[in-house]
Parts: sequence; C-alpha cells; structure tokens
Amino acid sequence: MKLYQMLLLLLLGQQSFYAQNKPNIVLLFADDAGYIDFGFQGSKVMKTPNLDKLANSGVTFTQGYVSDPTCGPSRAGLMTGKYQARFGYEEINVPGFMSSHSALKGDEMGLPLDQQTIGNYLQKQGYKTAAYGKWHLGNADRFHPLNRGFDEFYGFRGGARSYFAYKNPKGDHKMETNFGKYEEPDHYATDVFAEKAADFIERNKDNPFFVYLSFNAVHTPMEATEEDLKQFPHLTGKKKTLAAMTLALDRACGTVLNKLKELGIDKNTIVVFSNDNGGPSDKNASTNKPLSGTKSNHLEGGIRVPFLMSWPEKIKKKSRYNYPIITLDLLPTFYAAAGGNIEDLKDINGVNILPFVAKEKEGRPHDILFWKKETRAVVREGDYKLIRFPDRPAELYNVPNDISERYNLANQYPEKVKSMYKKLFDWEMTLERPLWLLKRKYEQYDVDRMNQYREGWIPAKD
Amino acid sequence: MKLYQMLLLLLLGQQSFYAQNKPNIVLLFADDAGYIDFGFQGSKVMKTPNLDKLANSGVTFTQGYVSDPTCGPSRAGLMTGKYQARFGYEEINVPGFMSSHSALKGDEMGLPLDQQTIGNYLQKQGYKTAAYGKWHLGNADRFHPLNRGFDEFYGFRGGARSYFAYKNPKGDHKMETNFGKYEEPDHYATDVFAEKAADFIERNKDNPFFVYLSFNAVHTPMEATEEDLKQFPHLTGKKKTLAAMTLALDRACGTVLNKLKELGIDKNTIVVFSNDNGGPSDKNASTNKPLSGTKSNHLEGGIRVPFLMSWPEKIKKKSRYNYPIITLDLLPTFYAAAGGNIEDLKDINGVNILPFVAKEKEGRPHDILFWKKETRAVVREGDYKLIRFPDRPAELYNVPNDISERYNLANQYPEKVKSMYKKLFDWEMTLERPLWLLKRKYEQYDVDRMNQYREGWIPAKD
Repeated sequence: MKLYQMLLLLLLGQQSFYAQNKPNIVLLFADDAGYIDFGFQGSKVMKTPNLDKLANSGVTFTQGYVSDPTCGPSRAGLMTGKYQARFGYEEINVPGFMSSHSALKGDEMGLPLDQQTIGNYLQKQGYKTAAYGKWHLGNADRFHPLNRGFDEFYGFRGGARSYFAYKNPKGDHKMETNFGKYEEPDHYATDVFAEKAADFIERNKDNPFFVYLSFNAVHTPMEATEEDLKQFPHLTGKKKTLAAMTLALDRACGTVLNKLKELGIDKNTIVVFSNDNGGPSDKNASTNKPLSGTKSNHLEGGIRVPFLMSWPEKIKKKSRYNYPIITLDLLPTFYAAAGGNIEDLKDINGVNILPFVAKEKEGRPHDILFWKKETRAVVREGDYKLIRFPDRPAELYNVPNDISERYNLANQYPEKVKSMYKKLFDWEMTLERPLWLLKRKYEQYDVDRMNQYREGWIPAKD
Repeated sequence: MKLYQMLLLLLLGQQSFYAQNKPNIVLLFADDAGYIDFGFQGSKVMKTPNLDKLANSGVTFTQGYVSDPTCGPSRAGLMTGKYQARFGYEEINVPGFMSSHSALKGDEMGLPLDQQTIGNYLQKQGYKTAAYGKWHLGNADRFHPLNRGFDEFYGFRGGARSYFAYKNPKGDHKMETNFGKYEEPDHYATDVFAEKAADFIERNKDNPFFVYLSFNAVHTPMEATEEDLKQFPHLTGKKKTLAAMTLALDRACGTVLNKLKELGIDKNTIVVFSNDNGGPSDKNASTNKPLSGTKSNHLEGGIRVPFLMSWPEKIKKKSRYNYPIITLDLLPTFYAAAGGNIEDLKDINGVNILPFVAKEKEGRPHDILFWKKETRAVVREGDYKLIRFPDRPAELYNVPNDISERYNLANQYPEKVKSMYKKLFDWEMTLERPLWLLKRKYEQYDVDRMNQYREGWIPAKD
C-alpha cells in the first residue's frame, strides 16, 4: 500500500490503518465433543442452530484433525503450530494421573516457556488477545495465559471444572480474572465465558483482536441448567445432559457471533470452530459415528473433529474442503491473515490453509501427518493411515474409502506398510522424550476404550 | 539334621555346620563379550583355557539370556531376579546419555532402594558377600555396593573405565576399596579384580561366601597389556586387543578358580560364568555369530549370552541344558542352594534352575520371557520369538530352528503373532514407567546398529 492510499484511508475516517485491514480472529474451541454431535455434522439429536449458521457462512473441513486425541497435548499443538511431542508434550497433563516416575508433576507440567503461542505471534502483529475458559497448558504462574501471549483472561488453569460456582474453589479449578483475581461465575460458566468474550470484542472493536474462547463444554462433569435440560424431554440420562450442555455451548457461540454482527465487524472476522479431541463416549455419552474410536485413541474418532472456518470477505459460503488439515495449521493461517511474514514460521509444522481453501493452491496442505503417544503412533500419508499399536500388528486403512476404519489393508499392501512404518520412525526421531509420564494403567484404559468403540471391525485377511 | 549328627561333624573337625553344607557361590560376569568369543563357545581366535575347563566341569546353557541388551538394566535384573522395568530400570543409565527431560539424571540414577539384591538375600542366609569390578547400579552413595547387600567392595561405581591407573581419576571412574577409600590399581585392572576376589575367598574359606566378580572386560576402552597382545601376533587392530583382553579375562577367572581348588573348596562351590549383554561389534570387534544383532538390540545377539554353571557336588560334568534360562534365575537358584525358602521369593520372576538341570523337574523353567525398551519389545514363548519394532512390522522367529533369525514367520503364523502381541502388552502393563530417559538419538543408533549386524536376513513372504 502506498502512502497516498494510507492517507486517503485516514481521511475517510478509518480509525486506524490496521483496524480496517487486519481481520479479527475468533477461535471457538469445544472440549470432548463427539464428531457427530452437532447439527452441521448431521446430528438429529443435538440442537446447534448458531453453529449450523456458522457452518453455512464459510467452509466445513471434512477431514479436520487435532494433533493428539487428548486435551493437553492437542492444545499445545494448537497453540504452537508444532507437533507438541517435539518439545516433550507427548502425554496428557493431569496432576492426579501421573506416574511417580514422571520428571514433571502437578503444577510444574506446562507448555515449555521457550515455545511461542498463537497469542505471542498475533500480539507481534498488533492484535489485542484474550483467552476465555479452559487453559490446561500449565497451572504454575509462569504458564499463565497472561505470560503466554494473552492480554486478558477469564477462566481456569486446569483441564475440567464444574459449570457452576464452587463454594470452596481449589487449585486449578478456581475461576480467575486476568492474573490471580479469583471470582466464581454467577451463572452457567459456558454462558459466562461467551459474555466475557463478547465484552472484550466490544471493547476492541476498533483494533484487531484475537479471542481464544476455550469452552470446557462438553467435558465432564455432566452439568446443565434446568432450562436447557427441559429442551430435551425425550432424552434421559447422560445423553439428555449432553444435549443440554451442547445447546448451551451453541448459545454461547451465538452470543459471540451476534456481537460481531451487532458491531458490524463480522465480515472481516475469521471465526473458527473446532474441538480438542474426539468424544469420550463412555464418559459424556458423546457420539463419534461414523468414526470408530474415541478420545485418547488414534482411530479417526479420537483425532478427527468438527472443523469450521468463516471469513465472509474471503471464504466462500457453504463450501467444503476435503483434504486433511490439522489444528497446527491455525497458527500460520491466522498469522498470515494478520499480515505476518510466513517466513517467520520456518520451525512450525502447520501451513497456511487459506490459499488451499481459496483454490489458489492445488494439492494437499499436508502430504503426511503424524501422531504419537508412547508405542501407539499413526502416520497418515495421502489417503492411507497406518496405526502402530502396542498390543497387535499395525493396521492400514484407506481413510476416504473407509471412514469407519473397518477394512484393515495391512496384508494387502505390505510394501506400503513398511514404507510408512519407516517414515513414522524417522519422524519419531525428531521428537524430544516426554516431559512427563502418565501412570502405566492409562495405556490399558485407552486400548480398552478403543476396543469398546470399534464395532464391525473386519480384520485383514491373512 | 539331628543333634548327634551335628556334634559328630564338629568332632570330625568341621569348623562349622554351615561351612560344610552351604555352597560357596562365585559369579564371574563379563561385560560386552561376543557370544562366540570364547573357546567353549567355538571361537578359533580367542584363547580361554580356564573358562573352557569350567565349561567342561559343569553345565553349559545353550539358551542363556540376560534381561536386557544393555549393561545397567541387565545388571538390575540380575541383582534382583525381577524384570527390571517393573521398577522403572528400563533404559541404560549413563550420565552423559540422558535426555534433559529425564526424571533422574547423573548420580541420582540407580537401583531403587526398595529392591533387594542377591547380596541382601545371601547375607540373610549367613553368607559373606563381596563385589569386585564394575558396579553400574548407581553412583550416589546410597546405591553403593556396601549399602546393597555386599560386605566388601573393590571396583568402580560407573559403567566403564581404563584398565590402567588414571593419573587424575574422576567421578564414577575412580577405583574404590569398600566405601570411599580410593586407590588406583597398580597393574591391569582385570587381574587386580580377580586377585582381590581370591584374597576374599581365602579369608572366607571357612564360612559360606558369595563373590560377584563383575569384570569390565571386554568393554571399551580397548586396552590390553603388551604381554597379552604379544600372544596374538597374527591379529591386528581392535581384534588383537580384544583377544588380549579376553585372555586376561580368562586368566583372571583362572586366578579365582585355582584359589578355590587350592583351598579345597571347589567341590562345594557354585561357579557361574556369564556376560551382561551381547557384544557391541562396532565398538570392541566382538563377534556374536551365528547370532544376528549386537548389544542394545533385541535380536539373539543382544540378549543371548555365554552361560556356564559348575557345582561339582551337584551338577554333572560336560552337560548341556537347552531350554531358555535367564540371569533373573540366578537369585532364586543361589538362594535355594544357600538354604533359603523359595517361598520368600514370590515377587521374583526368576526360577530356581537347579532342579531342571538335575532333571528332577521336566519341562521349561519359563514358558514365556519378555524384554522391553520403549517401543522395542520381545516376547519369547516356547520356541517362538516375536519382536516388536518401532520402524517395521513385528517379526516372528522359531529360535531353535533359526538361530540367526533369518526367516521371519510373521505372515505364516498370523494368529501366533496376534496372541503373542497381546501377551507382550499384558506384561507391559505390569511395568512401571521408566525412571530415566535416554536422548532420543540413541534409539536411532540402536536400530542402525541392529541393521548393520544382520546379514542374510530373509523377509517374510507377503
């Protein structure tokens, strides 16, 4: 842009050069939601009118992945744009779940301080940044959002908490405003997070901003308001509560989306909706069908998530993008949209996906993608996915042809199995050893849960 | 034994009731020796007359295993009779090799204090116990042999050192008499260790004793005396040095064996000779043929070792025992021979192998055996061995039919593969997470070294 153009813009009453050009960015991030548990994903049970409208306003990614099937590592990948195991964030960080042999435990587990977050990158581009809701990237003060690229925060440091006020809030459950000012929510937390985000948006309407609205919905505990529960008289038990929690989640997203519209800044705002990992069906009655598997395992049900992106000025309505993308891509996508130089991101594994969505770039954003937790690991190369297990031979699937991973092709394509195994190991050798270690028993739990949510699996012919 | 019998023995001049009945126990333990690098194993290059004589005096185990293909974990299994990964001793403890993410590092790595050693068990049976040579089970004082079941010690705490005196000995290289009295050897260390052991034997000839003579031979550094080198004029380079070091090792074993004879206590002394893991052929020119593989990988060349046991009063001369046994068996074998109640060892994975050697018990001492380091793991069930790799599909071998592991049977017996995979995982779930972690790059090194020493491998037909 030339000088005279800038002057012209100022004369036309724009509050700032940046305000007009840089898109705002809102990342709506759900927790433990099932793959199919949204209207726009095909659910006949859940009611999500606001998110369905968001889906219609932009692109739906049909193969949107997270970088891990559990909360903490998935968020570490999202926040850094890197395979989180590269810096040792390989296993989920839950204070009570760790082995006594773990190097780090309790509040000492967190996103290593030498890693830069989306917040850090966008702050450098002049953005005001805020995080709401669940953090789960470290309880110690040094890991606090305000120390990791966010200007404002309202939420809790841990991985889960009640949706209502605690009488005696403790530890990483405590709801916190910015740094150290603790105040429990006065109504249902999902709504409160969205209201706080809407307030931030209103205060920052004249400058570019980034909102990371990290709902704990629909993670356990299974808690909903009486009013939301009443909307599902035909349902019972956990499924009823899940539906009510999802309705609240959708309403909260609507609070933010409506605020953008009300302020007239919706057209130049990028809104992403996604979810941190597959639904843990045994815990919260979530459904990942037609995908097999759940949270904490590497079948599609663990790592493929609902994934929407809207940017009315740039992305075509009601479009679909079918090649695999991953939450690692959000950092470079946002950074590039914010005017950042993509050359700054040489050490990042994500790619800017906007040129692919806009069909300016052909082909796949990623020829190959990887996942790992201890012996369990996955490589997705093109349409094929190899899963390395600790307790059974590796399995090979053609994912687009076999979305439920029912037809193991390992014996049919032995050379492909060997070649992908090798690539998986080569990638593994680029990772650090884990910074913390879960108790061994969770590995058994994860394998058992995978088996439980794997109907109709057809073993390879020998 | 009745009172009058005891009195009779005393009248006959026996120094004590125990001295006559309880066998002495001498464990001669080599370091990093090649499977074939002994006369009794078939070497045409190495000269080991004393060990060959020992082999002829008792039983040779043709499938004798260690519990890990690296020094530290193998010794932790030997000392406790347990799969060492059960208490987190899964990876080798070498201070400079550890990941910065390792929970324990440097001198803090060691055999956990809640574990009982062979020394502890034999002390309880009234034995005088002594350790000579390489310890490698922890550098910190609390891990010192004198704190782990040994009455006397001369050696060094670490994993390797020079065979000659250092001018400025440092850290875990320092040669130590008992606790904290440091004195460098005045001649070749292999000989010094044996002389110290012989002296201990002489001083304890009238009471039951246990000697753990843990040579660092033939670990690097490759150092031999001029005189020993002269015995191999036809050899050059590392092979020449290895032959000279092996000759010294054999001579040192002879020093101890001759002392037993000289004192007239050889008939009621159990002597075991073995080695901590397969030869690292790239480092010390050792040869594991006909086995494939080396130290630090799980082919037979990494985990199967020369293994002799002699007890003239009980074990038949020149016998061979062909079912798999493992160094974990030494603790219960020694303990039972010492009069200990095997019921005390319920938590041990080894078994007393003497009844098997004596043909009092039929069948296999172990229906199943396991090994593990991270993703790499092995289950040996009956004659079959399944190897789980990080970088290629699991392989299945019939070990007695295919000693070199050339014919991968995985595709031929898919049901066996599945069943063994499951058993391997079930066993893995009984282990603790590792107490310390190597740098990632060593995994690559181990895999590369395995590939390098794997000639003539024939992949499974697809």
